[in-house]
Amino acid sequence: KAIEDALAETPASTLLAGQKVIVTSGPTHEPLDPVRYLANRSSGKQGHAIAAAAAAAGADVVLVSGPVAIADPPGVTTRHVETARDMLAAVTEALPADLFIGAAAVADWRPLIDADEKIKKNGGAPPSLTLVENPDILATIAKTGPHRPKLVIGFAAETQALLDHARSKLERKQCDMIVANHVGRGSDVMGGDFNQVTLLSHSGEESWPPLRKEDVARRLIATCANLLAEQAE
Amino acid sequence: KAIEDALAETPASTLLAGQKVIVTSGPTHEPLDPVRYLANRSSGKQGHAIAAAAAAAGADVVLVSGPVAIADPPGVTTRHVETARDMLAAVTEALPADLFIGAAAVADWRPLIDADEKIKKNGGAPPSLTLVENPDILATIAKTGPHRPKLVIGFAAETQALLDHARSKLERKQCDMIVANHVGRGSDVMGGDFNQVTLLSHSGEESWPPLRKEDVARRLIATCANLLAEQAE
Repeated sequence: KAIEDALAETPASTLLAGQKVIVTSGPTHEPLDPVRYLANRSSGKQGHAIAAAAAAAGADVVLVSGPVAIADPPGVTTRHVETARDMLAAVTEALPADLFIGAAAVADWRPLIDADEKIKKNGGAPPSLTLVENPDILATIAKTGPHRPKLVIGFAAETQALLDHARSKLERKQCDMIVANHVGRGSDVMGGDFNQVTLLSHSGEESWPPLRKEDVARRLIATCANLLAEQAE
Repeated sequence: KAIEDALAETPASTLLAGQKVIVTSGPTHEPLDPVRYLANRSSGKQGHAIAAAAAAAGADVVLVSGPVAIADPPGVTTRHVETARDMLAAVTEALPADLFIGAAAVADWRPLIDADEKIKKNGGAPPSLTLVENPDILATIAKTGPHRPKLVIGFAAETQALLDHARSKLERKQCDMIVANHVGRGSDVMGGDFNQVTLLSHSGEESWPPLRKEDVARRLIATCANLLAEQAE
């Protein structure tokens, strides 16, 4: 709490000085031909705010962003990618890191075939779209072995049974913390400026009130700095 | 030609004074669940520029736009929609009109099922995605009967055999003109600021040099004003 309060009053801090941070943000787009793609909804606002907050806390930050309509955050090295496979490659290339925060809404599946030319509507039946599973970036980074970041944090966006799914994701993917948020047709999280999250770790859970995405970002970075400091003790 | 030159020098004109114009722009997004969708690539830059040019020429303009990252053009009534079905409903509601220009990249297909809750990755096979055909907005408007706009203009974006596809589209959809442009992985039309188009009508075809999208828009509006004036004679 003291650290958060201090951070709130200090625009630039040294909480993460000397630390290397990788953040993913935005959706991925999975092409089925040159003009069509399958995508996840994500404005990138939360992930970009986290990258900006990490930079403001003195970290060396690489942001790997899917296609978004918002600007690159200042003071951050931003890599632009389109697909989940591109995103995993860019994250892997940015390793090693002390902290990984996977805030991107990575597509779970992609079309099996990415056609070289636009698929034509020929009056017949629509094409059937066979999907294949994308690489799991969070699980991959959490299992990197000697290069594993000290802290690996994922996001879970769900429309139902949020905490059950988030707890299961925490265990299954061997990460250190899941930031769970409720999304979907009733909520205005996707694309909006506010977020209400619950943090789940192996030691328990903590719910935050609805906050601006910048404030969620700042509190999350302060929490991570605390955890890294505890690890170093 | 004289009209185009005059228009180029006159920021606001009366070329389309008293005329009602409906323009569609941008992609459509076709949801498969609350967080995932199928989409076409389209920045909306060309369609929005056309709406702005029509307004600058004195027309009463309704722009029906899919999800884009650019601002609503000034002086234009903009309706925001997400799916092809929403877009058709908004266009139909805006009728009658003198001129319809369908510049949107409407998705040909949508997922058969739009799930109420996020589809979960359960370790099993990926879901198979069954697609169904979307309504054909251009063909529907071109066949409106007594309410048919005097001029119905479509766009054809192709990655190969552009003019053959565009000519076939002109005949099949019973519209008055097709604006054909080459898109795809080699081109920078999608999302870029320039466009190279060929106009196909029942009386012939005309290729324009690469131009800024605003200039394509201005020339297209001047061409439409000419055609409407000829019809009125």
